[in-house]
Amino acid sequence: MASSSRPRVLVVGGGFAGLSAVRGLSGAEADLVLIDRCNHHAFQPLLYQVATAGLASPSIAAPLRHILRNQRNVTVLLGAAHSIDVDARHVDVDGVTHIYDYLVVATGSTHAYFGHDEWARYAPGLKTLEDALDIRARILTAFERAEAAEDSQDRAAWLTFLIIGGGATGVELAGTLAEIARHTLKREFRRIDPASAKILLIEAGPRVLPAFPETLSLKARQQLERLGVIVRAGRPVTHLDARGVALGDESIRARTVLWAAGVAASPLGAALGAGSDRTGRVPVTANLSIARHPEVFVAGDLACPPPECGSIPAIAPAAKQMGRYCARAIRSALAGRPLTPFRYRHHGSLATIGRMAAVADFGRIRLSGLIAWWVWLTAHVYFLIGFRNRLVVLIDWAEAYWSYRRGARIIFSAQRALDSAGAPEAGSPRQNRDARGTDPRSAPRADHA
Amino acid sequence: MASSSRPRVLVVGGGFAGLSAVRGLSGAEADLVLIDRCNHHAFQPLLYQVATAGLASPSIAAPLRHILRNQRNVTVLLGAAHSIDVDARHVDVDGVTHIYDYLVVATGSTHAYFGHDEWARYAPGLKTLEDALDIRARILTAFERAEAAEDSQDRAAWLTFLIIGGGATGVELAGTLAEIARHTLKREFRRIDPASAKILLIEAGPRVLPAFPETLSLKARQQLERLGVIVRAGRPVTHLDARGVALGDESIRARTVLWAAGVAASPLGAALGAGSDRTGRVPVTANLSIARHPEVFVAGDLACPPPECGSIPAIAPAAKQMGRYCARAIRSALAGRPLTPFRYRHHGSLATIGRMAAVADFGRIRLSGLIAWWVWLTAHVYFLIGFRNRLVVLIDWAEAYWSYRRGARIIFSAQRALDSAGAPEAGSPRQNRDARGTDPRSAPRADHA
Repeated sequence: MASSSRPRVLVVGGGFAGLSAVRGLSGAEADLVLIDRCNHHAFQPLLYQVATAGLASPSIAAPLRHILRNQRNVTVLLGAAHSIDVDARHVDVDGVTHIYDYLVVATGSTHAYFGHDEWARYAPGLKTLEDALDIRARILTAFERAEAAEDSQDRAAWLTFLIIGGGATGVELAGTLAEIARHTLKREFRRIDPASAKILLIEAGPRVLPAFPETLSLKARQQLERLGVIVRAGRPVTHLDARGVALGDESIRARTVLWAAGVAASPLGAALGAGSDRTGRVPVTANLSIARHPEVFVAGDLACPPPECGSIPAIAPAAKQMGRYCARAIRSALAGRPLTPFRYRHHGSLATIGRMAAVADFGRIRLSGLIAWWVWLTAHVYFLIGFRNRLVVLIDWAEAYWSYRRGARIIFSAQRALDSAGAPEAGSPRQNRDARGTDPRSAPRADHA
Repeated sequence: MASSSRPRVLVVGGGFAGLSAVRGLSGAEADLVLIDRCNHHAFQPLLYQVATAGLASPSIAAPLRHILRNQRNVTVLLGAAHSIDVDARHVDVDGVTHIYDYLVVATGSTHAYFGHDEWARYAPGLKTLEDALDIRARILTAFERAEAAEDSQDRAAWLTFLIIGGGATGVELAGTLAEIARHTLKREFRRIDPASAKILLIEAGPRVLPAFPETLSLKARQQLERLGVIVRAGRPVTHLDARGVALGDESIRARTVLWAAGVAASPLGAALGAGSDRTGRVPVTANLSIARHPEVFVAGDLACPPPECGSIPAIAPAAKQMGRYCARAIRSALAGRPLTPFRYRHHGSLATIGRMAAVADFGRIRLSGLIAWWVWLTAHVYFLIGFRNRLVVLIDWAEAYWSYRRGARIIFSAQRALDSAGAPEAGSPRQNRDARGTDPRSAPRADHA
């Protein structure tokens, strides 16, 4: 029972779904607590820009308590939810028990390696700002290592970048990496030509951007190839380690491998005891609540609504719609009003590929190339509303566009990356007038894993 | 002997001194190699803005190889120099031997804890971008912990910030912290009042800013106190641990302690075998070279020139002058020209305190308050020339000025900080309707140390 007369709403996760749920309850006669492991909301669609050194992290993130400072019925707490008791109606957060009347679980998804968890350390995925900084450090360090490499095989391995997974994230990373190699780093190295870097996009299925119509997949592939990306579709990765990957009997040597292939729902979903689908998502009713617990909602990437809600992609607008629906559902319950089921409304799909290259699918209207890129740019700057950084992002982008420079090429952990590279072979100190740097056999990535 | 006919110049350290030495040799008939542990040059005078979440790291840093992309006679290598053999004329960099004809060592300084190295984990200093992000995480996490604290003593300890050392860095940190507590975080918390935070600036000597004239020290103290900082001068710290500090028989409980008290020269100086002064600086001749080795130069904070060079403070303009002098000395040696000794030219001292508060000492002209702050602002934006980010910095500052917001309030390691805080006392799960967060006894700082 509540010690206060106002019902208590607990929201776990401050991503698009959780934040929309909290905002949707603005002014409601309820006490809200928002719990997140991070102090900030990150604008996930632009994470790849942080990973590729185009934007600084603060440009795409804002503190949750700052975003919610004027909503007086919400308390923001930094913490990690560990277990949920839906019968007793409480959640354990770092050893402290939080009781709720209504619960919204919106902890999203994480990377999945299809049963090969050992691949994670060699091929990081991109879900958080920390992931983005890790990937940024790996990409920039790879070019540094190539510059210092002593033999051509090593140099080639440092200059080969594999992106596993041809969905939107993989396509964005590959296109932007190609731009960095061909343009951003031009003239900055003395021993290597960054433009000689090989960027391979590897997709297990038959085509990139499988969620898009086939014609747009083809356009995307053509645009990638024009940017210098080598697209390899139709062959899954069978092995992956520090030296590179194998696609069946073909092996590719590469020091930098990025994972954009699979996602699994957040493990907190299992704590609800409501079952899960193949990727760990929690089955919910058309009201987005779990069976037998109309007071427990699941929203965003973690939720698996029934087919009558529509076919729901794992994108920000879908998470926001679900979050807002949960708020409406709680308001209805508080007022004793009936509730219509959740229906997802799809407004279109966008994927950017690189400089002036993108595809857009609005049902009957399908765009690609420059016009799709402008639509993408406008939409993303528009949806950064609420962040103070739109102007800064625009300036960074305008400058990047005109000069090909990328403003955030800072490795924070360079020294740690070097330390983990270890010493060269014992007993073979090298006299090297050309000073071809550090031991090229050890990857910096071990440090980051 | 050189395998190429051009003499080889090795510069270790890409700070103000090293970078100035390299730039001063632009176009010279020599092959330069610049070695740094980081991939970037950081504009150190603004590090405190990154530490206090006012600026994103990329706004005050740029990749060394980008800065030097058009200087074709220099190769930039990421690496750490470990030992120097001045007789054989080579430097070991991560196990690879680099031979030189001329060497410039400019590896600067690090924190010194006056024989109490164990204090480092409780009281981080501010010398690198990584330090700045560590301090930022501690400051922001402290307010999060205070919001979650269960008893008033703990809350008070999380809301007490000690800055040890009343030099320029300590004064900047204290003044900016006061602004954050009083203004930036206003309205964002529900259980604590951030404005109730205590910010103490502790100086062992009799006054803050001891390098300034006494009248300006007094003005600085008045401005600090107006901003809400408690200044404690005249008593050194005698003990320091996770719970706070002791000043003789007085102890102050605080969860966040920042170190701005002492610096020691980089340990690489000792590798030159040329002796050192009390703080580890390397004694050099009036030509900035070490005794018996006119081809080995030391510049910046690591150098201890003789009195006839002038009284040289550890500030960026002095490091730049020394770096440029080394370049001139090497050019003279290459051309067989005579060389005049190094003379430091002091243009003035500036210290910012906070919003519209600063002091400036130009010899006969002494300024404080708003006008000194404008001088400081103009000078720092001007000297960011060469960084692409001046416009972004200006926008961030203009916005911070008008709204008191700070754009970079992002904790990257929130989860790790929480993890290190551990579980609450065994056997005492708390039922807490008010959900006063995580175990307040464990500091996040252990994670960062």
